[in-house]
Amino acid sequence: MSKSTIPKPREKEFLPQRRRRQRETAIPWGGTVKSYAVAVVGPTGYAGAELVSRLLRHPRISDVVPVVRDGNAGRPLAELLPRLGGLALPECVPFSTELLRERSVGLVFLSTPPEVSLKLVPPLLEQGIRVVDLSAAFRLSSTEEFERWYGIAHRNGFTVNGNHAPRAVYGLPELHARKIADAQLVANPGCYPTSVLLALLPLRTAGWIDLDRGIVCDCKSGVSGAGKEPRLETHFVEVEGNFRAYNLFRHRHTPEILEQLGLEAESLIFTTHLLPVRRGILSSIYVWLRERRERQEVESLFRSYYSGKPMVRVLAGGRLPELQYVVETNFCDLGFALDAAGKRLVVVSCLDNLGKGAAGQAIQNMNLMLGFAEEEGLL
Amino acid sequence: MSKSTIPKPREKEFLPQRRRRQRETAIPWGGTVKSYAVAVVGPTGYAGAELVSRLLRHPRISDVVPVVRDGNAGRPLAELLPRLGGLALPECVPFSTELLRERSVGLVFLSTPPEVSLKLVPPLLEQGIRVVDLSAAFRLSSTEEFERWYGIAHRNGFTVNGNHAPRAVYGLPELHARKIADAQLVANPGCYPTSVLLALLPLRTAGWIDLDRGIVCDCKSGVSGAGKEPRLETHFVEVEGNFRAYNLFRHRHTPEILEQLGLEAESLIFTTHLLPVRRGILSSIYVWLRERRERQEVESLFRSYYSGKPMVRVLAGGRLPELQYVVETNFCDLGFALDAAGKRLVVVSCLDNLGKGAAGQAIQNMNLMLGFAEEEGLL
Amino acid sequence: MSKSTIPKPREKEFLPQRRRRQRETAIPWGGTVKSYAVAVVGPTGYAGAELVSRLLRHPRISDVVPVVRDGNAGRPLAELLPRLGGLALPECVPFSTELLRERSVGLVFLSTPPEVSLKLVPPLLEQGIRVVDLSAAFRLSSTEEFERWYGIAHRNGFTVNGNHAPRAVYGLPELHARKIADAQLVANPGCYPTSVLLALLPLRTAGWIDLDRGIVCDCKSGVSGAGKEPRLETHFVEVEGNFRAYNLFRHRHTPEILEQLGLEAESLIFTTHLLPVRRGILSSIYVWLRERRERQEVESLFRSYYSGKPMVRVLAGGRLPELQYVVETNFCDLGFALDAAGKRLVVVSCLDNLGKGAAGQAIQNMNLMLGFAEEEGLL
Amino acid sequence: MSKSTIPKPREKEFLPQRRRRQRETAIPWGGTVKSYAVAVVGPTGYAGAELVSRLLRHPRISDVVPVVRDGNAGRPLAELLPRLGGLALPECVPFSTELLRERSVGLVFLSTPPEVSLKLVPPLLEQGIRVVDLSAAFRLSSTEEFERWYGIAHRNGFTVNGNHAPRAVYGLPELHARKIADAQLVANPGCYPTSVLLALLPLRTAGWIDLDRGIVCDCKSGVSGAGKEPRLETHFVEVEGNFRAYNLFRHRHTPEILEQLGLEAESLIFTTHLLPVRRGILSSIYVWLRERRERQEVESLFRSYYSGKPMVRVLAGGRLPELQYVVETNFCDLGFALDAAGKRLVVVSCLDNLGKGAAGQAIQNMNLMLGFAEEEGLL
Repeated sequence: MSKSTIPKPREKEFLPQRRRRQRETAIPWGGTVKSYAVAVVGPTGYAGAELVSRLLRHPRISDVVPVVRDGNAGRPLAELLPRLGGLALPECVPFSTELLRERSVGLVFLSTPPEVSLKLVPPLLEQGIRVVDLSAAFRLSSTEEFERWYGIAHRNGFTVNGNHAPRAVYGLPELHARKIADAQLVANPGCYPTSVLLALLPLRTAGWIDLDRGIVCDCKSGVSGAGKEPRLETHFVEVEGNFRAYNLFRHRHTPEILEQLGLEAESLIFTTHLLPVRRGILSSIYVWLRERRERQEVESLFRSYYSGKPMVRVLAGGRLPELQYVVETNFCDLGFALDAAGKRLVVVSCLDNLGKGAAGQAIQNMNLMLGFAEEEGLL
Repeated sequence: MSKSTIPKPREKEFLPQRRRRQRETAIPWGGTVKSYAVAVVGPTGYAGAELVSRLLRHPRISDVVPVVRDGNAGRPLAELLPRLGGLALPECVPFSTELLRERSVGLVFLSTPPEVSLKLVPPLLEQGIRVVDLSAAFRLSSTEEFERWYGIAHRNGFTVNGNHAPRAVYGLPELHARKIADAQLVANPGCYPTSVLLALLPLRTAGWIDLDRGIVCDCKSGVSGAGKEPRLETHFVEVEGNFRAYNLFRHRHTPEILEQLGLEAESLIFTTHLLPVRRGILSSIYVWLRERRERQEVESLFRSYYSGKPMVRVLAGGRLPELQYVVETNFCDLGFALDAAGKRLVVVSCLDNLGKGAAGQAIQNMNLMLGFAEEEGLL
Repeated sequence: MSKSTIPKPREKEFLPQRRRRQRETAIPWGGTVKSYAVAVVGPTGYAGAELVSRLLRHPRISDVVPVVRDGNAGRPLAELLPRLGGLALPECVPFSTELLRERSVGLVFLSTPPEVSLKLVPPLLEQGIRVVDLSAAFRLSSTEEFERWYGIAHRNGFTVNGNHAPRAVYGLPELHARKIADAQLVANPGCYPTSVLLALLPLRTAGWIDLDRGIVCDCKSGVSGAGKEPRLETHFVEVEGNFRAYNLFRHRHTPEILEQLGLEAESLIFTTHLLPVRRGILSSIYVWLRERRERQEVESLFRSYYSGKPMVRVLAGGRLPELQYVVETNFCDLGFALDAAGKRLVVVSCLDNLGKGAAGQAIQNMNLMLGFAEEEGLL
Repeated sequence: MSKSTIPKPREKEFLPQRRRRQRETAIPWGGTVKSYAVAVVGPTGYAGAELVSRLLRHPRISDVVPVVRDGNAGRPLAELLPRLGGLALPECVPFSTELLRERSVGLVFLSTPPEVSLKLVPPLLEQGIRVVDLSAAFRLSSTEEFERWYGIAHRNGFTVNGNHAPRAVYGLPELHARKIADAQLVANPGCYPTSVLLALLPLRTAGWIDLDRGIVCDCKSGVSGAGKEPRLETHFVEVEGNFRAYNLFRHRHTPEILEQLGLEAESLIFTTHLLPVRRGILSSIYVWLRERRERQEVESLFRSYYSGKPMVRVLAGGRLPELQYVVETNFCDLGFALDAAGKRLVVVSCLDNLGKGAAGQAIQNMNLMLGFAEEEGLL
């Protein structure tokens, strides 16, 4: 992808009102409903539980079906997620496209490992059920690249009802809103890539970065990003009071960042660190600018790029974002500092890895797909 | 300071045995003692308490005099530092050079703000008492630079007993061991600079860094580095579960790093972040190499540079340091990762900001000044 | 208060529909509004910020006026509470009953120290503005007792418009819902008392406790309960990794607990501890039962007492509550364990000190006062 | 055990100097050594690593042999315990009594599960090697009671060299110092029991407690007490910001507490809670006194009971202990509060569960067994 093909922010990203209304009422197998039923496969992991919890409060969602792939089918969700006790909660069901049709489910969230998503997507699409996949299975345009980084064979070119499968849309709403609105399959971005891309896209699109000097993305994440599976690395005693870098030069989120920015590996260093906090990602991103800039110019560039994008907050007057202000929200906060010479720029990007970095972003994608307001249920 | 003047690591940095023995026995005002009495001014701050606690266990220190500059004189130290209860603890005394002489104190640690250190150093040196100053007062060779960054008038060119004051030695033992051994006044380095310098000195000395591309130092510190004074920024509720960058392009440790590396401001970005941990600094340092290198070459460079330096641990085989392994120690752990192309290098440097970053390093300096083994009382 | 006067849970605690509608539309100085305007005095403290944040999302509240008593009047709330950035936020105003009338404010929350609440309540009541006071100023029926525990002179018997002031209602909705609905002035309970009372009221009302053996209430709270004022006790370094008991036999919440339970001091020990967490209270409460009971009997007692009370969750089957399931909610979770002999009972009570322990409970009181559903805006 | 058999504190608990010297030099299979070799079975768990780390710094221990029971034999200890890197560290060896004899090991610490300890103790004793067992295998005098609480068959009445096995001594040095000195097998107490017993023994021995009212022991522990095995309960995300009670009325440390205090189950409630900290136990212990007492009387009772016991610190003047002052030490700190009526007493007991609650106490036992000063290597 050459620099000139970097997608530009659109001025008109929302669908016209008429079309939105239609989509709202049409469900894949005919008939009409007033509000929407959705399903979440994998509702007990950290991202899945966040999805369920937010969807239950979403004003346009009438029904949330938790789909489990283990022995928990039939159990009430409140037993698995005690925090939600006291709400009217659905029962877990096993995975079955018939059952999803019966429950009038038009959109499914997959909060599953990539190998599972690869298996579940085709039957869902064949039933005309739209999918937001939170795994990495469909994020990269090159299946070879996917197989190299993830070590999983991709169903390259799988077919849906005898036809070639639709290409997944990379679900970063600030970049691809229009395509997401029409997509059958949305690949929800990784948490780190979301924080890095939102910080770099305005600068990259404007061509301000001195690529000969290179970009450094130093990213730090809370522990929920590592998943719920108990391992020594996530044992409280090993994390509390600790801090460490990990997976240097081999983090799987690397190719996703490079593809969306249209950059070669050599021009960027992306590193990840484990913070002793439950939730949140803060990325410190370093660039040298091609030309001297004033602080106000940088702020204007960001403001203009994110104008009309409700989930990105550009902080004013040199203020810097903090994890505490984005945790449990769907915002990505951006702040920056420019040196006196106007050449060295640090952009600080903050989000909740389970919010804008996973479940919140997935709902934002759903809102676009179903023609709701982009921020509906996310404030 | 041009690049060619970067100090090289010496092969023989320890004093010969004979001289060491002499120094051990000589105290400034004549007489001989078997072991040493030292004083700590400011024993109740986080660094001061750490100093006292470590000195009380030091096998060559017979007497630790806690010197206070407030209403606490006369109180037993255990009341101020309950953790030390149960040990035989000295009483706090007010600052007085006569009293220090009476107690046979030959070396004083100043764990005080720079404006206080500037005031206390001259009378101590006039009495022939050697000083390790933990503040920034004497770290920079240029007093103008000090005044610009700290906003405090420096006693530029103060005199001691009618003569020009001796120049302070920058107390990084891995760089200046010989000078430290002979110094009257040692300026203990900042915590961040220690972690950055130990990561970069081998590469800088060897000339491996592509300075045209720039160096990025992304540093993260625990909260004890911010001092004991209660402020909203250090309130538990504002720190726990939080993470943030601060003082971008205006952290006072910047000039100290540039001076010791012999670099201009433009070629380096140094940033600081606040970790929700009590102790520890982890610095992630990014350089592009001038020539392609193998991982083994990088490891050899570091091993060779730190050969015979007991307080730096170079991790083998791609292992990366973690805060948990250095906290409450005096070690600085170094690890690194090199990309497949052998050009992008990340060095990770870890230390305890109260250990190697303050009190431990001060004792290491004392050990050199008094002719003890460099690591005495520090393992 | 003898045992027989312990208030019983009412079966019909909500106002009839007609009356509710009337209250909704009437504002003190005449006129009608569709939805309600409220004000929060002290919006930047931890409880105040929680109030504002929850009220902004409350479906029946149209307008939230932040009232400050310092130099912050005129500043937008988002500057003081960055977490709320991105929402449409009101500007801070100074305290003025005229201004509150102009803004059609019918109810004011006081998130202020007791001495300030004592001063602000009379002018508000005189304007016919109803008050939920989060301080301790009006919680005790005996002003002597208040003065003894708080060391503040109470405006005993203040007058409102020439008449004797109305008696404040103790705002524990599970105990006094009907009185709260009609109250002009509600004293929002302390966080610890809420957790203790909800655990003990069913047992106390039923007369099951062997009072000759005594009750032990061992309570642990997160740090936000200590307020936002920076002090050494709340410094991150002093709290993180630490745990301690404090104010034994002299915590100010003691008389409030005794009064509501109708107990003498000798029959109960109430202690408080500081947890290294931001939010949440867990109270472990120990009683010896007068008669041997089965586990199922205890569970039934609690279920029956809290039937129709939406904000108390009685856990089934021996499950125990955890802070993580109540933090950021308005629930109080209750669980218990009974020994094999059926005599020794431990009740564990969990809530968010800023939720059910302060701001959430204040909104629950407001809901009752304004005739909304008790849990409106709280799920 | 009836009340009258409660062991009284001895006035002379240390062995006379001559005998101490002899024991120091005698090793089981003859010969003499100047200093001691010991082994640690299970050196990589949290308690085992703490043992190794402290023993390596112990001035009287010349050799620490780490014994592993898995694939780690032959690996240098520094690989398994990176924190110890930089020290001269021994290599791990497999379990073998021959090898222990070859290495002149006279005393072995078992930091192993009870079922493993039950298996390893007989062969060690047969070789004349003394054992400090950190598991619960030998803490209870009744093997039936052990089997009931632990669900493990006990080798009731195992033989050593054809003779009946020696009875293990309960290794609480403040209670059984003399017996420990002569013991072949010491059962190191549980962490919770140590904290509870040290708080209650003075009161129980003096007969001050009103047992008719009952005792409540509300205990809170850090996560390292739960072991290093990763489980969902110890996952960082499940612990951080959380707090909960667990194992009510069925914690395995219960019978140990009752036996050492000579109490029936009905007169005491013992509960345990999980603190979001790595290390430390704080127990809040509630008793009603039989007679009215003054604060000074209580303090005197404790001071007198712990006179000459270097590892218990009785806090003066109403000060209360805190975790932060005991973590990483071998102290147990005791403080208390008495109500104005002199009848309700709260004793607060604090220790490091890996220090005085496990590894430190084991070394204290070793010191007594080998005739060293009780606190040697522990300050």
